[in-house]
Amino acid sequence: MHYRDYSPDELYTELYSVRQEYDGIKGMGLNLNMARGVPSADQLALSLPMLDIMHHDVDCLAEDGTDCRNYGALDGIPECKRLMAEMMGVRPEMVMIGGNSSLNMMFDTVACFMNHPVVPGMPAWALIPNRKFLCPVPGYDRHFGITEYFGFEMIPVPMDENGPDMDIVEELVKDASVKGMWCVPKYSNPTGISYSDDVVRRIAALQPAAKDFRVMWDNAYCIHDLTDDHDEILNIFEECEKTGNVDMPIEFCSTSKITFPGSGIAAMAASENNMNIIKYKYKFQTIGYDKLNMLRHVRFFGDFEGMKAHMKKHAEVLRPRFDLVLSKLQQLDDLDIVWHNCPKGGYFVSVNVMDGTAKRVVQLCKEAGVNLTGAGATYPYGNDPYDSNIRVAPSFPTLEDLSKAMDVFCVCTKLAALEKLTS
Amino acid sequence: MHYRDYSPDELYTELYSVRQEYDGIKGMGLNLNMARGVPSADQLALSLPMLDIMHHDVDCLAEDGTDCRNYGALDGIPECKRLMAEMMGVRPEMVMIGGNSSLNMMFDTVACFMNHPVVPGMPAWALIPNRKFLCPVPGYDRHFGITEYFGFEMIPVPMDENGPDMDIVEELVKDASVKGMWCVPKYSNPTGISYSDDVVRRIAALQPAAKDFRVMWDNAYCIHDLTDDHDEILNIFEECEKTGNVDMPIEFCSTSKITFPGSGIAAMAASENNMNIIKYKYKFQTIGYDKLNMLRHVRFFGDFEGMKAHMKKHAEVLRPRFDLVLSKLQQLDDLDIVWHNCPKGGYFVSVNVMDGTAKRVVQLCKEAGVNLTGAGATYPYGNDPYDSNIRVAPSFPTLEDLSKAMDVFCVCTKLAALEKLTS
Repeated sequence: MHYRDYSPDELYTELYSVRQEYDGIKGMGLNLNMARGVPSADQLALSLPMLDIMHHDVDCLAEDGTDCRNYGALDGIPECKRLMAEMMGVRPEMVMIGGNSSLNMMFDTVACFMNHPVVPGMPAWALIPNRKFLCPVPGYDRHFGITEYFGFEMIPVPMDENGPDMDIVEELVKDASVKGMWCVPKYSNPTGISYSDDVVRRIAALQPAAKDFRVMWDNAYCIHDLTDDHDEILNIFEECEKTGNVDMPIEFCSTSKITFPGSGIAAMAASENNMNIIKYKYKFQTIGYDKLNMLRHVRFFGDFEGMKAHMKKHAEVLRPRFDLVLSKLQQLDDLDIVWHNCPKGGYFVSVNVMDGTAKRVVQLCKEAGVNLTGAGATYPYGNDPYDSNIRVAPSFPTLEDLSKAMDVFCVCTKLAALEKLTS
Repeated sequence: MHYRDYSPDELYTELYSVRQEYDGIKGMGLNLNMARGVPSADQLALSLPMLDIMHHDVDCLAEDGTDCRNYGALDGIPECKRLMAEMMGVRPEMVMIGGNSSLNMMFDTVACFMNHPVVPGMPAWALIPNRKFLCPVPGYDRHFGITEYFGFEMIPVPMDENGPDMDIVEELVKDASVKGMWCVPKYSNPTGISYSDDVVRRIAALQPAAKDFRVMWDNAYCIHDLTDDHDEILNIFEECEKTGNVDMPIEFCSTSKITFPGSGIAAMAASENNMNIIKYKYKFQTIGYDKLNMLRHVRFFGDFEGMKAHMKKHAEVLRPRFDLVLSKLQQLDDLDIVWHNCPKGGYFVSVNVMDGTAKRVVQLCKEAGVNLTGAGATYPYGNDPYDSNIRVAPSFPTLEDLSKAMDVFCVCTKLAALEKLTS
C-alpha cells in the first residue's frame, strides 16, 4: 500500500511507529559513510601487486628508450598513451597523459581557456563577463565547482533516461556566451544512466553560436560495468567527425577507480587543434608527469584486455553492494515514496525522495550517524529546485555497514515523507 | 698571454690553427648534451632502493591513519609536510604538497592569481593590462616562460655576486603594475651565486606599490651543496616576519634532483593569507596528489637528516663533473676571454663568453655535435643584450663525455672570439 493511500489516522500511526524506530537507531552510535564514490579496501587490495612492478633492479625504460626516472616526455610515454587511447576509443596521438587526477586535467583545461583563446582570434573566456556553462542535472558537484570557481553562470539542463534534454541544449547553445557543457556520458554521476545514441548524435550535431563551445566529455566510468550486460555509448569523436565538429569534445578518463584513487593515471583526448592549444600550455606548466607510475600501470595490466579483466574483479566486489542497496530500497518502492535508478555500472544509486524532503532525509541520516552527500550537491550552486535528489554511494562501506546504513536511510526517508504528509 | 694582447698577425695565425682544430673535432661525429640540469644515471641509481619501499604487503597508512591508496589529503600527508617544511625551514602548517613538479606549482600559482585576486578587493592579475614581473638575469628560462605565457611584461634586473641589484628592484617596485619577482636564492640558475644576507633583508623590506606584489622564491637547490663548505642563505619568511611582509614570499622546492626528476615530490610554503587563496583553488582543482609517492619518499629518507645524507651521495657524483668543467675552463681564463662562476652547489656553471659571441659559440658547438642551452635562454624573451651568457650543465654526461664536450666548448669559444677579434 502506498503512503498516499493512507488515511490521516493511518499516517499518524505510521509516523509514530517510524519515529520510534528512528529514535532507536539514533541511540546506536553509528558512524557510516555513503557520501562519495570511493573504492573500498577490498577494491584497493586488487591493485596491490602493482606496487611490486617497479623495483630497484627492473629497467625503467619506456619502449622508446625514455628513462622514466628522469625528466621529459611531456605528453606521456607511448605505451601509456596507447593504453589510455584504447580505453577512450581514440587514436594515441590524440592523448595526453597527466598526473593522478582527471579532475585536475579538467580544471586545468578550463583554466587554460580562461586566459588563452580556444579558437585563435576569439577572446579568452575570462574576457566574456556573462560566460555560461551547461550543467546537466543532477550531475557531478566537482564539475560544477570548477565552472563556479571560474565565474561561469551555470545553466541546469534536466536529464532523462536518455541523457540531457537535447531540445533544451539545442536552444541554449544559440547564446554565444554559452561556452561549454559538462557530460558524464556513461553511467552518469549520479543518475547512472548512459547517453542514448540519439543524444550522442545530437550533441555531435550541435551548431553552437559560440565557435569556442566545448563539450567536457568526462568518461569517468567508461569500463566500469557491474555486469556483462552493460551499456555501450557511441564514440563522441567518431560522431563529431561525421558532423565536422571534431574540435567540440574534449574527453577525460583516469584509473582512479581502476587502480588507486590517490595514485592512478589520468588522461585526456582531443582534436589536433585543441591539443595544440592545450599542449602549448603544458609546455610552460611542466616538464612531464610521473612516468614511473605510467610504466607501473602499463606493466601491471599488460594491455587493455588485462585492464578489462581487472575491472571484472572490481565488479565482483561492487555488485553485491549495489544489489543490497536496491533490495533495501524495495520497501520504499512499495510505499511509492522514491524514484531511483538501477544502474549497470558506475558508482552511484541516484534516489529521488519525496519532493521537499531531501535536505531533511540527509539531516536525519546525519543525526543517526550516516553521512550522505549533501542534498542539492548534484545541482549547480547546491540548488535542487525540488529538494528531492540524493546520491547514494555504496562502494566504500563493508556489506555489513552498508546494510545498516541503508536501513537508516530507509527509516529516514519514510520519516521525512510522513512528516511532510502530516504537516 | 691574453688574446687582447696578440698582434693582428698572431690573431690570424691562432685563428687558422683553432679552425683546423675545430674542423678536426667536427669530423668526429660527437653527440653530447650539456643543455639542461638533468641528473645522470649514476645519480638516479642512488634512489633505486626507494622503489622497493611501497610493496604489496606493506601498510599504506600515513601516521594519521589516512589510507594513502585512496582519495583525500588535499595538502598532503602530515609526515611529508613535515619533511618538506624542514627542507624549506618553515612550519609544516605553511606547506602544501603537490604532484611531481615544483614548476607545475609555480605555474598554477601564477594561474591562480591571474583569475582570483591575491589580496581581497584588488583586481586579479588578468585584469591589469600592463602587468609586469621582475626577472633577475641571467635566470631560469622556464620561470620566464610562465610569466611570458600569462602576458606579463618581463623586466630584466641584473644579478651580481650578491644577487639581484636591489637598488634597481627598489626603484622598479614603485610601479603598481609590477606584480612579482622570480628568485632562485641559493645556487641561482644559472649563475650559481647565493643571495647575500643584505639582499635577502632588502627583499624582505621591500615596500612595493602593489599590495599584491609576490616574490616567487624558488628554493630549487636549497640542500644541493657540492661540498661541506657550502652557502647558507637567510630564511625569507623569518626576515619577512620582522618587516611585516610575511604575505610577500611564496616558496617552492622539490625532490626532483634528490630522488627522481620524473617521479619526485613538489611542495610550496606560504603565509596563511596566501595559503587560504591557494588552497581554496586547489579544493576545486584536485582531491589530492599522489600520497603513495609521498609515503615512499618519507619512508625512504626516514627524516630530514636522512635526506641530507642522501644529498652527500649526489655531491660525490656531481663534484668531479664540476671540477672537470672548471679545469677545462682554465685555458679560457688564461686567454681572458671568459668570465665564469665557481659554484658551491646547484646544477650549472654560468659562462660569459666574449660579448657578441654566445650565439656563435652555441652554433659552433651544435655543428660539432655538442648541444648547449640556447644562447639568450637565460634572459626574458631569449634576449641577452650582450650575447654573452651561456649556461653549462655538467650533470648529465659521463666524465668521459663531459671531457670531450668541454674540449669542444673551449675550441668553439676560442674560435668565436678570434673570428670577432679579426673581423
